[in-house]
Amino acid sequence: MRKIVVNSVKDLVVNRSRNKRSLISYGCYTFASSSPFLSRFLYTVSDPVAMSATSESTPAVTLGNINPKVLQCEYAVRGEIVSIAQRLQQELKTSPGSHPFDEILYCNIGNPQSLGQQPITFFREVLALCDHPTILDSPEAASLFSSDSIQRAWQILEQIPGRATGAYSHSQGVKGLRDTIAAGIEARDGFPADPDDIFLTDGASPGVHMMMQLLIRSERDGILCPIPQYPLYSASIALHGGTLVPYYLNESTGWGLEVSELKKQLDASRAKGITVRALVVINPGNPTGQVLAEDNQRDIVEFCKQEGLVLLADEVYQENVYVPEKEFHSFKKVARSLGYGDKDIALVSYQSVSKGYYGECGKRGGYMEVTGFSAEVKDQIYKLASVNLCSNIAGQILASLVMSPPKVGDESYESYSAEKDGILKSLARRAQMLEAAFNSLEGVTCNRAEGAMYLFPRIELPHKAIKAAEALNKAPDAFYCIRLLQATGIVFVPGSGFGQVPGTWHFRSTILPQEELIPAIIERLTKFHQSFMAEFRA
Amino acid sequence: MRKIVVNSVKDLVVNRSRNKRSLISYGCYTFASSSPFLSRFLYTVSDPVAMSATSESTPAVTLGNINPKVLQCEYAVRGEIVSIAQRLQQELKTSPGSHPFDEILYCNIGNPQSLGQQPITFFREVLALCDHPTILDSPEAASLFSSDSIQRAWQILEQIPGRATGAYSHSQGVKGLRDTIAAGIEARDGFPADPDDIFLTDGASPGVHMMMQLLIRSERDGILCPIPQYPLYSASIALHGGTLVPYYLNESTGWGLEVSELKKQLDASRAKGITVRALVVINPGNPTGQVLAEDNQRDIVEFCKQEGLVLLADEVYQENVYVPEKEFHSFKKVARSLGYGDKDIALVSYQSVSKGYYGECGKRGGYMEVTGFSAEVKDQIYKLASVNLCSNIAGQILASLVMSPPKVGDESYESYSAEKDGILKSLARRAQMLEAAFNSLEGVTCNRAEGAMYLFPRIELPHKAIKAAEALNKAPDAFYCIRLLQATGIVFVPGSGFGQVPGTWHFRSTILPQEELIPAIIERLTKFHQSFMAEFRA
Repeated sequence: MRKIVVNSVKDLVVNRSRNKRSLISYGCYTFASSSPFLSRFLYTVSDPVAMSATSESTPAVTLGNINPKVLQCEYAVRGEIVSIAQRLQQELKTSPGSHPFDEILYCNIGNPQSLGQQPITFFREVLALCDHPTILDSPEAASLFSSDSIQRAWQILEQIPGRATGAYSHSQGVKGLRDTIAAGIEARDGFPADPDDIFLTDGASPGVHMMMQLLIRSERDGILCPIPQYPLYSASIALHGGTLVPYYLNESTGWGLEVSELKKQLDASRAKGITVRALVVINPGNPTGQVLAEDNQRDIVEFCKQEGLVLLADEVYQENVYVPEKEFHSFKKVARSLGYGDKDIALVSYQSVSKGYYGECGKRGGYMEVTGFSAEVKDQIYKLASVNLCSNIAGQILASLVMSPPKVGDESYESYSAEKDGILKSLARRAQMLEAAFNSLEGVTCNRAEGAMYLFPRIELPHKAIKAAEALNKAPDAFYCIRLLQATGIVFVPGSGFGQVPGTWHFRSTILPQEELIPAIIERLTKFHQSFMAEFRA
Repeated sequence: MRKIVVNSVKDLVVNRSRNKRSLISYGCYTFASSSPFLSRFLYTVSDPVAMSATSESTPAVTLGNINPKVLQCEYAVRGEIVSIAQRLQQELKTSPGSHPFDEILYCNIGNPQSLGQQPITFFREVLALCDHPTILDSPEAASLFSSDSIQRAWQILEQIPGRATGAYSHSQGVKGLRDTIAAGIEARDGFPADPDDIFLTDGASPGVHMMMQLLIRSERDGILCPIPQYPLYSASIALHGGTLVPYYLNESTGWGLEVSELKKQLDASRAKGITVRALVVINPGNPTGQVLAEDNQRDIVEFCKQEGLVLLADEVYQENVYVPEKEFHSFKKVARSLGYGDKDIALVSYQSVSKGYYGECGKRGGYMEVTGFSAEVKDQIYKLASVNLCSNIAGQILASLVMSPPKVGDESYESYSAEKDGILKSLARRAQMLEAAFNSLEGVTCNRAEGAMYLFPRIELPHKAIKAAEALNKAPDAFYCIRLLQATGIVFVPGSGFGQVPGTWHFRSTILPQEELIPAIIERLTKFHQSFMAEFRA
């Protein structure tokens, strides 16, 4: 009995996402046209606990009786392709030589240090000293650590009540560290920032969840998201039971963000009874790598103001700009330049220690700057933060360091600058090399990575390959990526995990493998691609 | 127009929680008898965005159009009383002498290092070395750090792929660290533990949220929680839209947990159409401090098995047991001792680096051990973990250290043992002193703190005090705690934040102020209490 119920629920869910995929080729959210009654139906028919609560043979939890929003949520960056990669890695360990490659190359995720990027020395010195302050006064410390890292550690410890780096902080983060971050934002933008608007978080993701939790009341609340998008957004919207309202980036204009497209999708959703609450913009773009022009940003700000939308600005790649003609401008700076203050627009800016030149993913540091909300609504955001007590203090410290790195004259400045420039310039070269390589492949076109850490090439797959994928119940781009992985050990994420125009296929590659490895990667990739095309060309 | 709407929504929400409070004197969850239609009504009538989306004067987000679950959620440990305390602290800073005390004494939260507890040296040494591994080989390191901390840091770095402590890990946590934790659990329980069952988390709270997210589909899903309870549970259930099904701990038997009470509440909820999914047990108890007897735990396991409930075992105070006749037993050990394996009972055990003798709250480390779930359901839990990428690596490392501290023969063992015993024995003495003090106050009775970090005394408030509280629209225990704070600077949390039998009043105090301060605290408290009673005695 139970098995049948579970299967029928699976079918419902699968059919549901299939229907959605056919609408906009993206399977990971509640679309406006899907039935709001289905989820209720799911738990009505499929509840073995309710049906036989005291039966000893019924497990308490099955796929048929968990929260259907969890079932619907997808997160491609760590999805099926990564599971296959982990299995292959295990096989390489237990039977070396069992595959035509020696190691798995994880190009699926923006995780620089996992591919050999070294941390910025100054940041790690300060973290180590804050973790174990008793060594600060020792003579050995003076020879092991730079003088400005010692000075900075003292300064930070003085900002933390009782110098207790092992205590919960204020739920928005240590006040002194928020002061430092606010000063860093002011220096970046030329406009004031208020430490009371800063919420320090474990990476940027919890801040995104918090805002979705605040804004989404039901599937009738919509969030405008770019397609392609970083799947954290679709996952968070699905988990909170809202509706992802897609807007398409224009691949033919370098992944341009067009306000006319925003307006079109907004109006269409409103006509369906969706209340659109917010607009997500990722700048520099993930997975698309474009850097928005300032006048484009102005139009976006005007649009949000006009339409009463919260602007959720994912600005975690603000340090990752690789082309001389583009520059990062924060949306807050753009809004303030237009003369718009707190009363005019609600704006949340996300920053993370995981990206930039620092790439400190494992430290889980980040913040959101929340402006344009009333005091009473901010109290509610504070309450959400307080339920989880606070973010980790080392991540908080690191967030203050990335917003206030060594300055000219500091002992560490030279080495810090050399490390930073070395990383950013190398990333720019790697982006160029990979972009050129993708564009040289038959049927592949690739926009430039102006910023961020990714390329998102488009691939024209032969009809025979599409058929072969369908026979395996796979999306064609997933089929390509799995074949690539099996042949070369290289992990790309299929475009279907990010969303794409129906009938087009893409994949996302990071630009993060160490520079000296790139030529060999390109060679492996090119060889695979040629043989794949030879196999499936009509 | 908007203002009226917001006010009417506030009234609805306030009335709603008042109604609930009158049912079981606890305002922080959706109770079985509350209307499931109210939340729908809320967003139907109160949506200024939908009503006037393009009006420039309408803020995008108001109390009237946020997620009503957020409005309903309460978290007393950082609630109103703490806001008042923070204001007083600010006033003491700007105008010293403005209050009859010099500092705020935060006894509201289990945050040992904020009150002066020192971290365990060995743990901090290892963390500092893992933060900045380049110093590991230096001759200075050998004189600054213990040899076993250097050895342990090497061992941990070898467990982390590429030694990259700045990389995202596996979403369940670094495999090698999970191996260490599993070995620690085995050594504690005498039964096997599987590293694949361990999910490392930023403190214990995210693991609690994850299970609530998995299990709760609607307000018709219930979670059995102790009353009094740690308000993370009520907050998480409210945020996920479920129903808290209360069971009362018996104050007259030292906060005894009676299976007959569980059964009574379970049956009553089922009769109302609630599907009860899980039972939360906090052992040692928070805020109540009791340590469950092993035969009581056996009965609880049998109950969950019989009724098909997931057992959510909050075991974060497992190191905090202060009375010789009691001992901590994990629920997994109890279940396995009864012969019950993965097929018989679904069990989640929470552990945290924030509590115990380590008290490393700011590090946000913890784990949940998830047993008795099918592979496909565990895949869904993994997916939830993967949406947030991973928990912070320093917290992961620390979680492995607390489950595998220095052993006899290690260089650090003596100092580690002395630090640990010093803290635990002092906590036991502080608990006794405070318990005796509370019991000496007129109208106050206090059970023993057998474990955890709290006392939860009951207070018989004079009729006049209850009337005075009502006039201010405060719960009587909140009124008492606010008066105490204003007179002495001591912060206790009112019992109404944890739930209590209707008509009874309590407060929670931690046992964490440094031992030498306790006599002065008791003196201030006693003096205040006498004058409070003198003022309000009939």
